[in-house]
Amino acid sequence: MSFLDRVKACHGFRPDEFRPFVVAGKQVGWVLPAFAEALRGHEVAFLVDEASVRLQDRYADFRARTDAVQGVLGKLVRSGYLRKLRRELYSVGEGWGSEPLLAVDRAVVPLFGIEAYGVHVNGFVRAKDGLKLWVGRRGMDKATAPGKLDHLVAGGHPHGIGLADNLVKEAREEANIPEALARRAVPVGAVSYRLRNQEGLRNDVLFVYDLEVPEGFVPENTDGEVEEFFLWPVERVMETLARTDDFKFNVALVIIDFLIRHGHIGPDDPDYEALVHGRYRGWGEG
Amino acid sequence: MSFLDRVKACHGFRPDEFRPFVVAGKQVGWVLPAFAEALRGHEVAFLVDEASVRLQDRYADFRARTDAVQGVLGKLVRSGYLRKLRRELYSVGEGWGSEPLLAVDRAVVPLFGIEAYGVHVNGFVRAKDGLKLWVGRRGMDKATAPGKLDHLVAGGHPHGIGLADNLVKEAREEANIPEALARRAVPVGAVSYRLRNQEGLRNDVLFVYDLEVPEGFVPENTDGEVEEFFLWPVERVMETLARTDDFKFNVALVIIDFLIRHGHIGPDDPDYEALVHGRYRGWGEG
Repeated sequence: MSFLDRVKACHGFRPDEFRPFVVAGKQVGWVLPAFAEALRGHEVAFLVDEASVRLQDRYADFRARTDAVQGVLGKLVRSGYLRKLRRELYSVGEGWGSEPLLAVDRAVVPLFGIEAYGVHVNGFVRAKDGLKLWVGRRGMDKATAPGKLDHLVAGGHPHGIGLADNLVKEAREEANIPEALARRAVPVGAVSYRLRNQEGLRNDVLFVYDLEVPEGFVPENTDGEVEEFFLWPVERVMETLARTDDFKFNVALVIIDFLIRHGHIGPDDPDYEALVHGRYRGWGEG
Repeated sequence: MSFLDRVKACHGFRPDEFRPFVVAGKQVGWVLPAFAEALRGHEVAFLVDEASVRLQDRYADFRARTDAVQGVLGKLVRSGYLRKLRRELYSVGEGWGSEPLLAVDRAVVPLFGIEAYGVHVNGFVRAKDGLKLWVGRRGMDKATAPGKLDHLVAGGHPHGIGLADNLVKEAREEANIPEALARRAVPVGAVSYRLRNQEGLRNDVLFVYDLEVPEGFVPENTDGEVEEFFLWPVERVMETLARTDDFKFNVALVIIDFLIRHGHIGPDDPDYEALVHGRYRGWGEG
């Protein structure tokens, strides 16, 4: 195991395994053939062929498109094809900063291979005896990555809320961080990856924030999603990252980004060039 | 003009315009057809065809390969095809951290499209009235980018010296920075790009360092390569970057990386996703 293994675990995408998902003439996602075939039964909404999956152009605005997809998802749940929806909408468009063309339920974001956004907060303390990071352990009943190590604060980014407000909300729920402290988080970049999973494609951009917290601060989970929090010296974080897969796969990537930005992984590491580039989608493809 | 224009100016590479340059069975660069044809006259050293340019396999170690290429370059200078050599060697291999297969004169690195390394130091001051960056103006007699704005310290990375030692040496020559201060520079990542130019391909990885200098420190050029230094508020740096191309193209990219890492460019910028990814090669290709 090494840092590079943690990076490799975040990437795995072959475009030829997917069909483009197209809305209003724009590609907004990637669909596996199996799900494309499941959508064939719903050609009032989707146009499916060997080359692509298209939302019918008759749905001409955000609301109409969102309702059309939601209607099909309801049928897929009733037929038992989908387990359940999350009742939380994610924006669908041509990328961050572009006008969303529609919104879809979070549960089907990987099925459609839609670019999804998240907010990850590195909570750290500059203690007298060195740099320390706050690490959470995810609840054992979480749907994804139960029991894995996580950030002080991390969450998906739903449609219709600003990033900073979402960060404040997640900071309150996950770690009981007061708003004034949460708003001190500094945006320091993003990581991104595309990873085929059993449903389809994780196609994520995670906005990264650094939040220096005072030595006396102790996080407290309020929504039952975090089992416990630890304040670990950076050396222990690095050892755990390098030797185990205890950290959730994408949390590992964000922490490696933190270690690079703060000089704890430097160019004397023979993998440096790969680690620097492996923080972003496209790395290792083709 | 915008930050994104500065990023776009660093990228421009179409593999189909080049032929792979292969040494010991490994691709280590990219050669334009015109230069490939110029090497056809030197088939004792190079095997040239429509598909690739190969260093003859009979040169079996670092020294033999280096001498073979150097011999051909000498002939190309004598015949007038090349203007002059730099008498500084750059490593050639499969990437940072790999054993170099040979070294070639710096002057022909773009002709062979070899991955080259550099060291760029963001020199900054946390002043009472805000963050300031040290900016240099390059001498008007520099071969590349005369008169452009530059970093406090920046230089190419020659074969046979460690990054940190090269940084110390450049810091002394370019800005008269004492070694103890230069060694406080923190490695914070890298930027990379591939850019076709008139000779061939700039195929660069620039190792980025942040160096916080005391408010009283004033840099002083000792090698005649920097015309003058300015200490600019970050706002002036940002305005100059966004509205002009006064900064050298790759210095602009490194400063945009600095602004992202320090939260001065944040996700509220609609170009954020492109700026984050555009710091690395591969962006915008294909």
